[in-house]
Amino acid sequence: MEHIELKAKERIDDLQYKGLMIIQNTEAFCFGIDAVLLANFADVKKGDKVIDLGTGTGVIPILLAGKTQASKIVGVEIQPEMAEMASRSVKLNNLEDRIEIVTGDIKDSAEYFGSSTFNVVVTNPPYISKGSGLINPSDSKALSRHEILCTLEDVIRVSSKLLVPGGQFAMVHRPERLVDILCLMRNYKIEPKYIRFVHPSPYKKANLILIKGAKHGRPELKMMEPLYVYDENGNYSHEINQIYCRENR
Amino acid sequence: MEHIELKAKERIDDLQYKGLMIIQNTEAFCFGIDAVLLANFADVKKGDKVIDLGTGTGVIPILLAGKTQASKIVGVEIQPEMAEMASRSVKLNNLEDRIEIVTGDIKDSAEYFGSSTFNVVVTNPPYISKGSGLINPSDSKALSRHEILCTLEDVIRVSSKLLVPGGQFAMVHRPERLVDILCLMRNYKIEPKYIRFVHPSPYKKANLILIKGAKHGRPELKMMEPLYVYDENGNYSHEINQIYCRENR
Repeated sequence: MEHIELKAKERIDDLQYKGLMIIQNTEAFCFGIDAVLLANFADVKKGDKVIDLGTGTGVIPILLAGKTQASKIVGVEIQPEMAEMASRSVKLNNLEDRIEIVTGDIKDSAEYFGSSTFNVVVTNPPYISKGSGLINPSDSKALSRHEILCTLEDVIRVSSKLLVPGGQFAMVHRPERLVDILCLMRNYKIEPKYIRFVHPSPYKKANLILIKGAKHGRPELKMMEPLYVYDENGNYSHEINQIYCRENR
Repeated sequence: MEHIELKAKERIDDLQYKGLMIIQNTEAFCFGIDAVLLANFADVKKGDKVIDLGTGTGVIPILLAGKTQASKIVGVEIQPEMAEMASRSVKLNNLEDRIEIVTGDIKDSAEYFGSSTFNVVVTNPPYISKGSGLINPSDSKALSRHEILCTLEDVIRVSSKLLVPGGQFAMVHRPERLVDILCLMRNYKIEPKYIRFVHPSPYKKANLILIKGAKHGRPELKMMEPLYVYDENGNYSHEINQIYCRENR
């Protein structure tokens, strides 16, 4: 492992998967379970070219590099400090040959990379729509959570451009945006194919959705089994234990 | 109770709610749990005018008459024998003053009743889209299950016309049609407001959805707790027991 320098407020976290590590800044946006679930939900085949729109810490490209045989994974991040930190995490894991972190606006991605250039787009975009709640636009966490720099429509529009025909779009988002998500995907020719609701536990309402669509796919939505984070006894569910490799602890 | 004559293959079933009864033909489409769940899901206020599009046996108007203080409930049914049987069920329950069964095509309902005339539209429409599967168009059960005589778009279009501004649309359908449902509702100005997934039991995928929308409502979807028919031990869930008043058996 290379020697990677940490800046103030930064720490290295163990991704609990094949020894992968990630640098996070304790005062900036840190990755959550949503990113981990998305990395497990996306179907990435051997040789696929993958792009992560709004990669933040770079956690999704790093997990996908460990879990899949993607040939190339690009992470786009608009915040320069975040992108620079993600690049150091890529180096920390010796993944520079497979992961490229690009600083830039996802809205310009199709011009930058070209249309129909990726087999898979993954994205864990800001969840909160413009105009909801009070926000400080100079706050890095706010940029990661609110649709300040890009809207849901921007994300879906550019994803459609980046995908090859039949290519896969995989996103994690909030159930409150379900109507917007499904209608925008269909409008931009990414037909929703699989949907999975994530619940804190059985009997509780879903607080995340995982959705996969196919560029130019034919209409046919498959509802997947619900994913419960905790079981009825308050322990991590079997599936969450498997995802985090906690089964044998 | 009036004396109501039964025809061949007909029987009277107990609705297990306030002594309400229903006539069903054992060879035609019989109501299912979906109709009962929808009658519980719709919010009907005192004095509301309600219409049930595709009422079949009339089970939804009869349950709503028992459960709510709706002033008037109309059930529209295109199959004359089914509509006639539903009318006899209304008489059997002495509900002629509150329920009217109309034989006709739901597509003509807005012309027949006038636009903006109902506070609530409820519907348990055919689930299976045109062109899926083999069907016998002279078969009464097929007409109740497949979109032969009306499509999902017809149902939503006419519902939008029938509703007063702010009026409620409540439907039960299959999760496979979720994208069509949400996009058509939005297109026809019925904004989806509440969605509830019905699962056979926890950890199983949802097989029904209950959805409520508001005519000219503002975008804001609320995800409700999942509804499980059976609990993890294979018994009816507490909620299903409450709906069917089985709790004290």
